Amino acid sequence: MEKYEIEFNQDIPKYIEISKYIKKMIDKNNIFDGEKLPSIRKLAKTLMVNEVTIVSAYKKLEAEGYAYQKMGSGTYAKRRDTNIKFKKEYSNTLKKISGKDLKIYVDFTGEITSSEFFPVTVFKDVLNEVLDRDGAEAFAYKESLGYEGLRNSISSFFWDNKVSTEDILILSGAQQGIDIVSKSIINVHDNVVVEKPTYGGALTVFKWRRANIFEVDILEDGIDLSQFEQILKKNRIKCFYAMSYFQNPTGATYSLEKKLKILELAECYDFYIVEDDYLSELIYDQKQYKSFKSLDKNDRVIYIKSFSKIFLPGIRLGYMISPEKYKEHIQNSKINTDISTSSLMQRALDLYINKDLWKQHINYLNMAYKDKYDFMINCIDKYLGKKVSYFTPGGGINFYFKIDENLKINSMDLFYSCKNKKVLITPGVLFYKNAEQGNNYFRLSFSELKKPEIEEGIKVISKILEKIPKR
Amino acid sequence: MEKYEIEFNQDIPKYIEISKYIKKMIDKNNIFDGEKLPSIRKLAKTLMVNEVTIVSAYKKLEAEGYAYQKMGSGTYAKRRDTNIKFKKEYSNTLKKISGKDLKIYVDFTGEITSSEFFPVTVFKDVLNEVLDRDGAEAFAYKESLGYEGLRNSISSFFWDNKVSTEDILILSGAQQGIDIVSKSIINVHDNVVVEKPTYGGALTVFKWRRANIFEVDILEDGIDLSQFEQILKKNRIKCFYAMSYFQNPTGATYSLEKKLKILELAECYDFYIVEDDYLSELIYDQKQYKSFKSLDKNDRVIYIKSFSKIFLPGIRLGYMISPEKYKEHIQNSKINTDISTSSLMQRALDLYINKDLWKQHINYLNMAYKDKYDFMINCIDKYLGKKVSYFTPGGGINFYFKIDENLKINSMDLFYSCKNKKVLITPGVLFYKNAEQGNNYFRLSFSELKKPEIEEGIKVISKILEKIPKR
Repeated sequence: MEKYEIEFNQDIPKYIEISKYIKKMIDKNNIFDGEKLPSIRKLAKTLMVNEVTIVSAYKKLEAEGYAYQKMGSGTYAKRRDTNIKFKKEYSNTLKKISGKDLKIYVDFTGEITSSEFFPVTVFKDVLNEVLDRDGAEAFAYKESLGYEGLRNSISSFFWDNKVSTEDILILSGAQQGIDIVSKSIINVHDNVVVEKPTYGGALTVFKWRRANIFEVDILEDGIDLSQFEQILKKNRIKCFYAMSYFQNPTGATYSLEKKLKILELAECYDFYIVEDDYLSELIYDQKQYKSFKSLDKNDRVIYIKSFSKIFLPGIRLGYMISPEKYKEHIQNSKINTDISTSSLMQRALDLYINKDLWKQHINYLNMAYKDKYDFMINCIDKYLGKKVSYFTPGGGINFYFKIDENLKINSMDLFYSCKNKKVLITPGVLFYKNAEQGNNYFRLSFSELKKPEIEEGIKVISKILEKIPKR
Repeated sequence: MEKYEIEFNQDIPKYIEISKYIKKMIDKNNIFDGEKLPSIRKLAKTLMVNEVTIVSAYKKLEAEGYAYQKMGSGTYAKRRDTNIKFKKEYSNTLKKISGKDLKIYVDFTGEITSSEFFPVTVFKDVLNEVLDRDGAEAFAYKESLGYEGLRNSISSFFWDNKVSTEDILILSGAQQGIDIVSKSIINVHDNVVVEKPTYGGALTVFKWRRANIFEVDILEDGIDLSQFEQILKKNRIKCFYAMSYFQNPTGATYSLEKKLKILELAECYDFYIVEDDYLSELIYDQKQYKSFKSLDKNDRVIYIKSFSKIFLPGIRLGYMISPEKYKEHIQNSKINTDISTSSLMQRALDLYINKDLWKQHINYLNMAYKDKYDFMINCIDKYLGKKVSYFTPGGGINFYFKIDENLKINSMDLFYSCKNKKVLITPGVLFYKNAEQGNNYFRLSFSELKKPEIEEGIKVISKILEKIPKR
């Protein structure tokens, strides 16, 4: 307790002084992130104040994001994200390129399909067919779950009618799915497990709900199960957010065994798997890929799927399959989030699927992306060599690199150096609860790039890494 | 303290027994909603337990929605909404009519423009023109604020270029605006003021953020200012959610004086006005209507506007104007909520506005709705007479009625009686923080009804009210 020496000033309420002191200690790393703070009784005794004063001080720390409570266990320190500044700069950079204020030659940050592949003419015909067929109906919003025709098509086309149309909820994209699930099932201080690293947009949403976030390392075949079980044994977990194949950012894919084991754990420890079925259409190898949802026998999976990323980003469509337990909650959350999703777009996508155009388009994309993917691997091996390590995802649009530990650079500096040379990369810091842990990693997405751009960009990164002094 | 007599059972942790006991007392109304719970020290002494046990018990009550804390003041009881069951039934009824499982003759619950007024053919031409003009671009999402062309048109067409294009954020409808504002500016336990009654969809969103909600009575010319100032004097308020004209549900419109006064108070007490500019297009009298935003000199208004309600519900479009202080926060919240809004729809609306079709359409709607509105008033006066009281809104699509106090019926029973006769109304209970307060009120929206339906429906309600015994 020798850390806690506070000289009180008469003019300031004691609980404010105490919280200020502890904040400073956390910022200086004299109290570590996740360190247990003294018990209320103990600290009250040490500082010779009332217990209620300590309760108020801890409450204030909590409100300011410097502490969190675990029921029946006490209060823990929480380090504020020191890289908020960088995150802002990164997102402003992306905003600028999208606004075209910034001339960038090679953008490895893109997360959606290249516009060269958009089936514009065909989709236009489909839209017109819908408008002629449905008239004013195409602009109404009547069905709170989404257009029934589309829900039927999803059930039959993607799930062989094994999922009920009534369990499907149409979304305005996958990000909305994560937001809605969070509102429906996560309360303040609930425990959530995520993959480490994971998608930053999901981390943000869980933080909004004030969830306690646990991270579990991801290996080439899915998360580290022993770490995961350790957490499950000690904590009551509400849900586990997972991308089952070509995980963002790592590109990792769960083995069938791990999926089955995790489903078993979900039943045993009573938690739900929030499955973000990310880019499962882009498969370049011959392996069989199965979602958690398709393997789920106990209604333990909340399944989220985007149509936007792979198809037409601008149509903003996706869907969710809810377990019985949360179905109504999730539906109501959708209504209170944005009432409903564009009816015209739902009808158009439905017709597009039913004309078998979806299948043709995905086959075409697979071929086109397989070609880019192979080219990426060639360029990486040719130019980056031993300066980085990575594993080949076998699908998707991302490669995740660990920078050689002997090189004295962190991924944020690498980002700035690349940006100076008109190349944009995504530094690993964006994929972790505590940004520092991503210092040695970066992600390259080849989705929106042509081959010459890929080669040019990787050459630039290679040259930058070459000039880095060794430790 | 005589309320607090608990016999402890050895097998159950004491904090759980205490929280259970208090929960029961709140449910039974032995502890009132908003009543201050005993101080931690006092209750610990009374029950002869450790203070920390009481802290845990209060914490548990809070987590379960039965209590809330005010910093430096203590813990307060919170009554769980006893009408959750009714709300569920109401929303299930609406889901059923939308799913067509339920045959309803007259639906007074509709909140959007009647589909007979949708400009389908014209909009189809506009869509095609956009697709021919923009090609793949129409399906990309590049601009995080929304399509620049549309933001320019909004600035010039609706704001005479007095609002910067950079301050406008395109939304997927107004509901999303409320959700995004909440995520950006409201933290757990922050104080929010709403009109009483107010839009239920906003209440839900504020509850999600665990805000403390204060309600202020709405009069014919806006909220009761003395009530409002009382609250401002005693509490640090984060924001005030207001519908400036034809308020939902009451139809009330703020006087210019009240608007100016509230803007002054916002500056003085440092809060923000979240203005939901609801249905400001439908004006039937000759009065001048001005939004808070247009009167705001101190950047105190967060302005939210829907295009969906009045125009084409299925296009899901709206926009928001953010004050400088929260601009970046709000933009990032939008991205983490659904990445972006349908690009094609934004482009089509932009072209629609620029071809001056918007203005023509709104003029046409005004005429068509003025006619329905006058007819509504005639029917109300003819059939409902003194069984209800109400005031004439002068615009919009809603009438809000107070049931004659001598009639022994509450609005939920009225809802069920009407539903039996194939008429749907919206009971007042949905518009209050504590549903009971809406027992004497109901809302009728004439938006989606034709004249014969309006007359038929009001006759049915009249007959039901006639049969109600007097108190």
